[in-house]
Amino acid sequence: MKRYDDDDDRVWNCGAWFEYILVVVVSSILLIAASVLTIFWTIYYRKGFNMDDPKLQFNLHPVLMIGGYITLSGFCKRLPVPSVDNSWTECFIHVLIVVAILLYRICRCCSHLIVKLCHTFFHACSIPCIVIGFMAVWDSHNQQQIPNFYSLHSWLGMITMGLFALQFVLGFFSFLILLCCENATYKFRSTMVPIHASFGVATFMLAIATAVTGLTQKAHFELGENYSQTVEEGIIMNSIGVILTGLGIIIPFAVRRSNSPANCKVYVTERI
Amino acid sequence: MKRYDDDDDRVWNCGAWFEYILVVVVSSILLIAASVLTIFWTIYYRKGFNMDDPKLQFNLHPVLMIGGYITLSGFCKRLPVPSVDNSWTECFIHVLIVVAILLYRICRCCSHLIVKLCHTFFHACSIPCIVIGFMAVWDSHNQQQIPNFYSLHSWLGMITMGLFALQFVLGFFSFLILLCCENATYKFRSTMVPIHASFGVATFMLAIATAVTGLTQKAHFELGENYSQTVEEGIIMNSIGVILTGLGIIIPFAVRRSNSPANCKVYVTERI
Repeated sequence: MKRYDDDDDRVWNCGAWFEYILVVVVSSILLIAASVLTIFWTIYYRKGFNMDDPKLQFNLHPVLMIGGYITLSGFCKRLPVPSVDNSWTECFIHVLIVVAILLYRICRCCSHLIVKLCHTFFHACSIPCIVIGFMAVWDSHNQQQIPNFYSLHSWLGMITMGLFALQFVLGFFSFLILLCCENATYKFRSTMVPIHASFGVATFMLAIATAVTGLTQKAHFELGENYSQTVEEGIIMNSIGVILTGLGIIIPFAVRRSNSPANCKVYVTERI
Repeated sequence: MKRYDDDDDRVWNCGAWFEYILVVVVSSILLIAASVLTIFWTIYYRKGFNMDDPKLQFNLHPVLMIGGYITLSGFCKRLPVPSVDNSWTECFIHVLIVVAILLYRICRCCSHLIVKLCHTFFHACSIPCIVIGFMAVWDSHNQQQIPNFYSLHSWLGMITMGLFALQFVLGFFSFLILLCCENATYKFRSTMVPIHASFGVATFMLAIATAVTGLTQKAHFELGENYSQTVEEGIIMNSIGVILTGLGIIIPFAVRRSNSPANCKVYVTERI
């Protein structure tokens, strides 16, 4: 608890709170909208899911990658509120259920370890989504004899998955396993914090770039000439892309905004 | 000069300097590589430029948008070195001509206003690039009777251009025109700094998302079935996309990294 001793020195003014709540609410809406719109698109326009039909099996790919990876991991990003241990998921739940200003007090009661475990748990939930999402497109391509790994989308996707796996393994090792000898590993863990946070945001942004190229590719494959006639499905797909790009901007901004009311020292230590 | 009074309190250690130099060098290489590879691609594979042929007129679009906007504006982003007034352009030139560690002393001798004017000048240079780049594709589409503004690429592009124009006008007004009554506008300008910086990074990232969707679209239009056969041109186009995504990660990281050795107060005031 020692590292939060100087909590009361920092007073958040109205502007900082307004910005904080705005970022939480807007990014929550965008994260949910991206998933809902993708599910709607695959079910309404792409005829839903069926593992026996390679074309419908493909539809698992965007849903699991956007819903299971981007939305889940977006909610897991930690907002740098001084002396408040909160994950995005907690923030979101709290914003929904309490008057926003109460968040500060409520988040204080969660232990740092519980927040860490939540962060790990939600990222662990992404793993089956990513694996099944990847297998769905791989199998669907093979059955239709479409080659793999030729497009910009697939290249970016491979880099994203590799970085995610590395982040998960290194994060699990550094911030959970090494807790067994807490004092001896303190310095190493504090060095790892900014690296883990930066690569986490990098992975998220790579995922967004992968998703927008995937959507563009799918629009050209499925809609062909109709895409240029501004059909309804094209508008839905473009909207998913715009929402995802919005997320690619707001999440990194929320995670490390330059006008953070915290000073840098606290900012780093509170996230170890 | 008053606002830099406490310069000597901040000592950069080896790690911080190494990170700083690494970020400057890697992003400079990526910015130049993106432009060079795009020019090479359009000249070698897409038969260069010719205003009389709508297909070759189109080639101005990727070159001017990537070379004239992304590269130019990437170099203009300011790295948050405490008490060092430097723009990316200066950083880049200095890294090339001096032993990297000398940068600190050399940047100190540039006045804040000169850095600001450089920042404005390079962004102003982007304007004709964006306008001609936009006109090139607009005119080429119209001559070939291809519809406009239906794709995700065009939607993202419109948002990017709108945000760039807004940023330029507001930035010019806030940080240059308002200098005429320097003391009276100090508070307003200091409020505008984080907003201008955040929207600047957002515009840059939107440009990257626009570019990767544009590349994917172009690959499907021009290469068609050949794209899936992993042809040489496809590899070049994918590489441009990967480089651009790398820039979308490293530039925001450089501009406001969470492990900045400066404390937040200085970090904000030194960029007013």
